[in-house]
Amino acid sequence: MNIILAEAAEVVAGRLALTDRRAEHIVKVLRSETGDRVRVGLINGQRGFGTIGGMQRKYPFMVELHLELNEPPGELPPIDLILALPRPIMLKRILSQVTALGVGTIHLINANRVEKSFWEAGLLQPDEYRSHLLQGLEQAVDTRLPDVRIHPKFKPFIEDEFPALAGNYRYLLLADPAGRQRLSDAVTGNTGRIVLAVGPEGGWVADEIEKFQEQGFCCCTLGERILKVDTAVIALHARITALRELEYPLAL
Amino acid sequence: MNIILAEAAEVVAGRLALTDRRAEHIVKVLRSETGDRVRVGLINGQRGFGTIGGMQRKYPFMVELHLELNEPPGELPPIDLILALPRPIMLKRILSQVTALGVGTIHLINANRVEKSFWEAGLLQPDEYRSHLLQGLEQAVDTRLPDVRIHPKFKPFIEDEFPALAGNYRYLLLADPAGRQRLSDAVTGNTGRIVLAVGPEGGWVADEIEKFQEQGFCCCTLGERILKVDTAVIALHARITALRELEYPLAL
Repeated sequence: MNIILAEAAEVVAGRLALTDRRAEHIVKVLRSETGDRVRVGLINGQRGFGTIGGMQRKYPFMVELHLELNEPPGELPPIDLILALPRPIMLKRILSQVTALGVGTIHLINANRVEKSFWEAGLLQPDEYRSHLLQGLEQAVDTRLPDVRIHPKFKPFIEDEFPALAGNYRYLLLADPAGRQRLSDAVTGNTGRIVLAVGPEGGWVADEIEKFQEQGFCCCTLGERILKVDTAVIALHARITALRELEYPLAL
Repeated sequence: MNIILAEAAEVVAGRLALTDRRAEHIVKVLRSETGDRVRVGLINGQRGFGTIGGMQRKYPFMVELHLELNEPPGELPPIDLILALPRPIMLKRILSQVTALGVGTIHLINANRVEKSFWEAGLLQPDEYRSHLLQGLEQAVDTRLPDVRIHPKFKPFIEDEFPALAGNYRYLLLADPAGRQRLSDAVTGNTGRIVLAVGPEGGWVADEIEKFQEQGFCCCTLGERILKVDTAVIALHARITALRELEYPLAL
């Protein structure tokens, strides 16, 4: 926890009183004392510091913080994700990892090779997945919560909903081990938003790839090595970020 | 399991008889039949196919393969890793994920912020960590096992052992959230080997950074977001790989 996150509604007259795992973290991990300053942010709001005005160092833990939140939230990350719903245990990790790396919107969609039982996971309830997003923000010292949208049907998403979103993006990338385009040929500028679609274990089926292509997606590959979805999502995000950092035009 | 891996010693007159989880995988996951071909490779050796000559589809599973192994192993990946020993549960995942991404040698070293108890983990026994490396190879359809070396003392490694290795590398990169150099400024060519050093949760201490710098390491950052070690290792590997794919020189 590199930043203590709170809801705006928890703050009363510039003070934040903590009694849960956040108080425990300040006492037991940070080992802070009265008068110390800790990093604090409001979810989807300002960041800054809290000065400890009072605390109870034994169970039940209590910490009162006086807030000075003068920093704006981080910029909206330029990457949105479309992810074929993974196994719940893998989804948990992906949600916190991509939130730490920075992502705007996460669309969880159905695909032919998504196991039906995954759609019954409790993790798809907002209160459940939100805790994994918060872990990512706490890690990365960010306050901007990704927007998670759940689409249990593939065709209505790609044919009816996505066309209204497509104009937001300069780059529409579909990860496909059999794809012919290298990312470095596909991402050739450092402005404009990117949407990245990553398939299920076993990959997209041909019909799905065709639907994405009809929407203007370009099939990109990470190379010959086949990766698990959790590894692939991070690797793709990181590669795109590296390419965006470059000064353009490249001498190709 | 995208490739069935075997030891050379298991092959007798071009035949491989399987009775363990590999046989179970062929029966239950691949659902192969007699006469089908499956992807096979020898650990640290050739890759190719095995044709199923006979099988028992009920427990105890048995599959006999007739091998044709005509493809060389993949090339030696250009990246070696120096990793401050992480928590065992995280190390398991990192070992299989970096093996899937491709890594030559993995040096596990001590650092000030490595918890002492991590050195007692059973996972540091070769038979234990090897299974996680194999999972990564099975995922990535590779046969070249990374070389894992364990260095329980920091100073003897960096002062005595590393100088003999330094000449192998064109790029010596130290990941440090406070580093000033961007990876894209540090990796400016697509030839020569790279060694990447990643610290423990909480980071390297100043004295450790100094020792790496004395050996010629350059302090690189992934940006302002602080990442967990498992996310950071994959993200760094992927960013370096993206930069290596580019045509140089860049128009900077």
